[in-house]
Amino acid sequence: LWDLIKGSIDAGSGWLCVLLVGIAAGCVAGMVDIGASWMSDLKHGICPPAFWFNREQCCYPAKQSVFEEGNCSTWKTWPEIFGLDRNGTGPYIVAYIWYVLWALLFASLSASLVRMFAPYACGSGIPEIKTILSGFIIRGYLGKWTLLIKSVGLMLSVSAGLTLGKEGPMVHIASCIGNIFSHVFPKYGRNEAKKREILSAAAAAGVSVAFGAPIGGVLFSLEEVSYYFPLKTLWRSFFCALIAAFVLRSLTPFGNEHSVLFFVEYNKPWIFFELIPFVFLGIMGGVIGTFFIKANLWWCRYRKFSKLGQYPVMEVLFVTLVTAIICYPNPFTRMNMNELIFLLVSKCSPGDVTNPLCDYKRMNITSGNSFIEVTEPGPGVYSSIWLLMLTFILKLALTIFTFGMKVPAGLFIPSLLLGAIMGRIVGIGVEQFAYSYPNIWFFTGECADSNLITPGLYAVVGAAAVLGGVTRMTVSLVVIMFELTGGVRYIVPLMAAAMASKWVGDALGRQGIYDAHIALNGYPFLDSKEEFAHTTLAADVMQPKRNETLNVITQDSMTVDDVENLLKETEHNGYPVVVSRENQYLVGFVLRRDLNLAIGNAKRLIEGISSSSIVLFTSSQPIQNLGPQPLKLKKILDMAPITVTDQTPMETVVDMFRKLGLRQTLVTHNGRLLGVITKKDVLRHVKQMDNEDPNTVLFN
Amino acid sequence: LWDLIKGSIDAGSGWLCVLLVGIAAGCVAGMVDIGASWMSDLKHGICPPAFWFNREQCCYPAKQSVFEEGNCSTWKTWPEIFGLDRNGTGPYIVAYIWYVLWALLFASLSASLVRMFAPYACGSGIPEIKTILSGFIIRGYLGKWTLLIKSVGLMLSVSAGLTLGKEGPMVHIASCIGNIFSHVFPKYGRNEAKKREILSAAAAAGVSVAFGAPIGGVLFSLEEVSYYFPLKTLWRSFFCALIAAFVLRSLTPFGNEHSVLFFVEYNKPWIFFELIPFVFLGIMGGVIGTFFIKANLWWCRYRKFSKLGQYPVMEVLFVTLVTAIICYPNPFTRMNMNELIFLLVSKCSPGDVTNPLCDYKRMNITSGNSFIEVTEPGPGVYSSIWLLMLTFILKLALTIFTFGMKVPAGLFIPSLLLGAIMGRIVGIGVEQFAYSYPNIWFFTGECADSNLITPGLYAVVGAAAVLGGVTRMTVSLVVIMFELTGGVRYIVPLMAAAMASKWVGDALGRQGIYDAHIALNGYPFLDSKEEFAHTTLAADVMQPKRNETLNVITQDSMTVDDVENLLKETEHNGYPVVVSRENQYLVGFVLRRDLNLAIGNAKRLIEGISSSSIVLFTSSQPIQNLGPQPLKLKKILDMAPITVTDQTPMETVVDMFRKLGLRQTLVTHNGRLLGVITKKDVLRHVKQMDNEDPNTVLFN
Repeated sequence: LWDLIKGSIDAGSGWLCVLLVGIAAGCVAGMVDIGASWMSDLKHGICPPAFWFNREQCCYPAKQSVFEEGNCSTWKTWPEIFGLDRNGTGPYIVAYIWYVLWALLFASLSASLVRMFAPYACGSGIPEIKTILSGFIIRGYLGKWTLLIKSVGLMLSVSAGLTLGKEGPMVHIASCIGNIFSHVFPKYGRNEAKKREILSAAAAAGVSVAFGAPIGGVLFSLEEVSYYFPLKTLWRSFFCALIAAFVLRSLTPFGNEHSVLFFVEYNKPWIFFELIPFVFLGIMGGVIGTFFIKANLWWCRYRKFSKLGQYPVMEVLFVTLVTAIICYPNPFTRMNMNELIFLLVSKCSPGDVTNPLCDYKRMNITSGNSFIEVTEPGPGVYSSIWLLMLTFILKLALTIFTFGMKVPAGLFIPSLLLGAIMGRIVGIGVEQFAYSYPNIWFFTGECADSNLITPGLYAVVGAAAVLGGVTRMTVSLVVIMFELTGGVRYIVPLMAAAMASKWVGDALGRQGIYDAHIALNGYPFLDSKEEFAHTTLAADVMQPKRNETLNVITQDSMTVDDVENLLKETEHNGYPVVVSRENQYLVGFVLRRDLNLAIGNAKRLIEGISSSSIVLFTSSQPIQNLGPQPLKLKKILDMAPITVTDQTPMETVVDMFRKLGLRQTLVTHNGRLLGVITKKDVLRHVKQMDNEDPNTVLFN
Repeated sequence: LWDLIKGSIDAGSGWLCVLLVGIAAGCVAGMVDIGASWMSDLKHGICPPAFWFNREQCCYPAKQSVFEEGNCSTWKTWPEIFGLDRNGTGPYIVAYIWYVLWALLFASLSASLVRMFAPYACGSGIPEIKTILSGFIIRGYLGKWTLLIKSVGLMLSVSAGLTLGKEGPMVHIASCIGNIFSHVFPKYGRNEAKKREILSAAAAAGVSVAFGAPIGGVLFSLEEVSYYFPLKTLWRSFFCALIAAFVLRSLTPFGNEHSVLFFVEYNKPWIFFELIPFVFLGIMGGVIGTFFIKANLWWCRYRKFSKLGQYPVMEVLFVTLVTAIICYPNPFTRMNMNELIFLLVSKCSPGDVTNPLCDYKRMNITSGNSFIEVTEPGPGVYSSIWLLMLTFILKLALTIFTFGMKVPAGLFIPSLLLGAIMGRIVGIGVEQFAYSYPNIWFFTGECADSNLITPGLYAVVGAAAVLGGVTRMTVSLVVIMFELTGGVRYIVPLMAAAMASKWVGDALGRQGIYDAHIALNGYPFLDSKEEFAHTTLAADVMQPKRNETLNVITQDSMTVDDVENLLKETEHNGYPVVVSRENQYLVGFVLRRDLNLAIGNAKRLIEGISSSSIVLFTSSQPIQNLGPQPLKLKKILDMAPITVTDQTPMETVVDMFRKLGLRQTLVTHNGRLLGVITKKDVLRHVKQMDNEDPNTVLFN
């Protein structure tokens, strides 16, 4: 019974921890949402009765409909505040200038906060979290300051109207929360492997709150972020993601009621012929994604090695200025990216007159009171297509320069937007094709309706295709897309596009954006998805190479002086301990840090220890005890180092590094120590075998 | 470029393989569905114009509505065939007898086929597939005969009206298909680890076709079936599952049009208070699930160790007889289990008069032409509740005796049914409570509707709870449930119930039904979800124990005779090779099979090899070459055995066995060989530490 209680407390602490992480992630996400929404509206105007209301809340008491712009008298635009009219050239210019100024203010605040208080708070954070979950430690990356600054900075940079999303930073924020809470529970705080379980769950919660997609979040964490995902944490991650989504929804009552971000409800099924345009969208998505990755990488590399990298705040300000000036005139770029995506994926209802994308010619036949729709487009559709193409080019270019700047910035929303624009345009094209040639056999098969193409579905599929091309996600992409849209019926089109996108993307450039940034930054990340298919042996990779000597410590014949000299002359993180120089049979492994500490302490605290004391790693005394008192260090010796033989194929060694999370392994032959393989050696060897420069691998 | 082409062919073979597996799994599932549906209807009657039509197809041309029973003149019941009336006592008895006879015929056919042609085709197959995916090989378990007999037997045993489902056997069938197709592609057929990737994908396809739940299938394969799920196969599994579902749907045009098995569409949201009954359902689900597991295990153990085990066909016949006789009179037990579940989860529409569960008193107020519903139940509801309780007890008892019999039998549908019955009853109770006390604060919060409880939702939640209690699934359970019902809005109630069920179940009895059956059968399955939290060392577990000697082969001093004696005297699967008896430094590991083969071949084929030849595992000749020509066996020596030191904690050793899929590891101390730890030693040690009998572990 006692075991049962102890067991349940033990298991309960993990559940409590993820519960707290979920609640906190939901709260932070709620604050970021509310703040970003208020500040985004602040660029346009203010609510004089209560300045802390955003436009939606300001207009809510006045009238129910909140989506029609400009008709709410409570909300004042900036020209109105200054006593001008709402419309006209003068007010337009005033509004334009205020828009740009607010954007610059938000962006400069965001960049300065990041620069001054938490340099780690910039960017998306997903490449770093992948690296951390693979076993690398970046001190402070998941700390309190990063959490605070990233939350505030994200709010500001989203409000500034920059071309960025909040999902990557949300994952980072949630991981910070996970890290902080894990220190509350000793079981998780003290054990790095256990802590990573909490971090995996937190990453799932991050995606969950960014999109309201708990299942997609768990799969994203499983597929993309986590290195080794233990199945026993699957359920806990799901719980964490769900709690976070639930808390977030409770906090934002003005949010979308459907609990799906871009809720779509198409009443038409897709027809088999449409798979051709869907696959085409997938191919285009792969091409655009790869182009984006290459261009962004080229720009990041340029920034890194040029003077530009020294002026991060100036860069942010300049990009913000350009973004704000270019984006204001075009109504599609001026609006929030989420709203634009929603517009693109939604279907045209017959009565819709405000949406220029739905400006179709209608025949008003009074059979009942319904319109009979025809799909002959009106002028609004044509002009929208041109504006959308412009928007596509602008947003693509801006995203390339924005992602990688020193502000919190995510990639999902810009990618989805690019894809949705492409998809909508293709969708309108297919629709017009079907309208012009209604009698081609593949249109007539299903039903005699002249109006069987839904351009909004193409936007959804296109969004999935580009996001897939950029991130190379697979299952999680499909699941996120239908959690985002609620369109469970369209799993086959989504999958066809995602698959085409991934294949084309992988053929054009092997890495997704996160892996590319990991490589760019030289993080020691050993990809667990790629197979190592070469025939090299451990003997080929191990240090030392021929003609070099292996630095070892003997178990009972080196003096304190010898050891200290060894520590001074070499910089290894640890040293193998062997029986003797002549018989290099492996006894164990000792860490540099432990050795330094133990020798320092012994010299200060134990009497009789001098530089000529023998360092002993055995429990037995040496027989000839002539010199000063020996220093016994058996307790710091790791008696269970992982070893491989020199004939072990590197395939097995790489597998062991991945699955067991090793930092080094010792290489033996017939029990004798031959050398060491560190994680860095493995990483360099993998790069070398892939014909890449092995010297790009950094290591702490 | 050549690498690219080679790479894409290489990768393509995997995709092609899962494509074929998906198509084949979909086809087989379609045939089983069509066959089972026809034969199930055959128990009631026949379609004289075309005997190969089931009732639905038979009635389809006559009239559109196919769910109302008894009004189709084309379809003839057995009494009608014999010239009797459709209704009355005489015809009832005739129909009863025919029903029982057909059931007995189908069941005896199924059991005999299994007994005669493929004994492995019995049961669910999931415990065995879990074991196979953990690295154990059961020859013939996934062969052609098993596939054929399991498909036919499943069709027959479902048609016999036994209390069993087809999802477990479907997973087994799909895995057989995966195994067969993997032999077409050398890359997968020759490598056990690669083959398991295909098997994982096939298992996903199996669940996908059983339920039309591709995502749930992948997660089930990931969470429950697969031992080590490499993420790179996630996408491929998903593809396989989707193809299979797609093919199945194309084959069964008369199937459900929604592509969800138990499509529900509730127009009412759940209210917060309802979480209390949902959690109660979860707790009950855990209790019922655990009770079922214990009772079933007790019965299976009794069967195994008593004479009953020798008469499997008689047992099947007896259970079928009892099932048919008991189930016919009660309309809820007579109908197909799928239909009953659908009835239980569906909501009552105002016009519904055929469903006795929907017999509420209605006020017919002619405002518009809609009924205003009141929830005061009519006599049909009361009598239904009594019948449902009876059904619950009957089905629970029958399932306990049925699962484990020598016919193909799955557990999902019976579990879902038990839960749905429980849930519906609880739901009606809560509904009546809300109707009687409409003014309690927690009912008045959301909306003033007097009719805010949907009993169907309780049935869905209850079904999830019992299935969770029986199988201890988590995320896959929730995902399968909403893929089954389409109710994405009810993720929180489902999760609350699943969590309560899992916790209660785990507290009452640690293992799910599959793990329990693995333990019952003594399969060598090393659970990858449980932590090994003891402090034993490798030295405590390794063979030989003190006072025993370790059987080794020396690298250059044993004769062929010595080796042959060793092979005769011991039964190990392999032997470590050391430098010499005095210096037991480890050189490598040699398999018994290879040794036998090599020595046999050498004696037959190489001249000069005699019993006194030295067996050499080195490349250098021994210096004193006095005797006959030595036998060089270096090429069969595994020079890269995995080793651990004697001081390695067993936690690490268990982890290595799990993650690296080892069969044995060698234990060394300072390079000297001390002993061997085999997988069996690990399994026995884990059992011992958990206070279970270590001798229950079988091994080939």
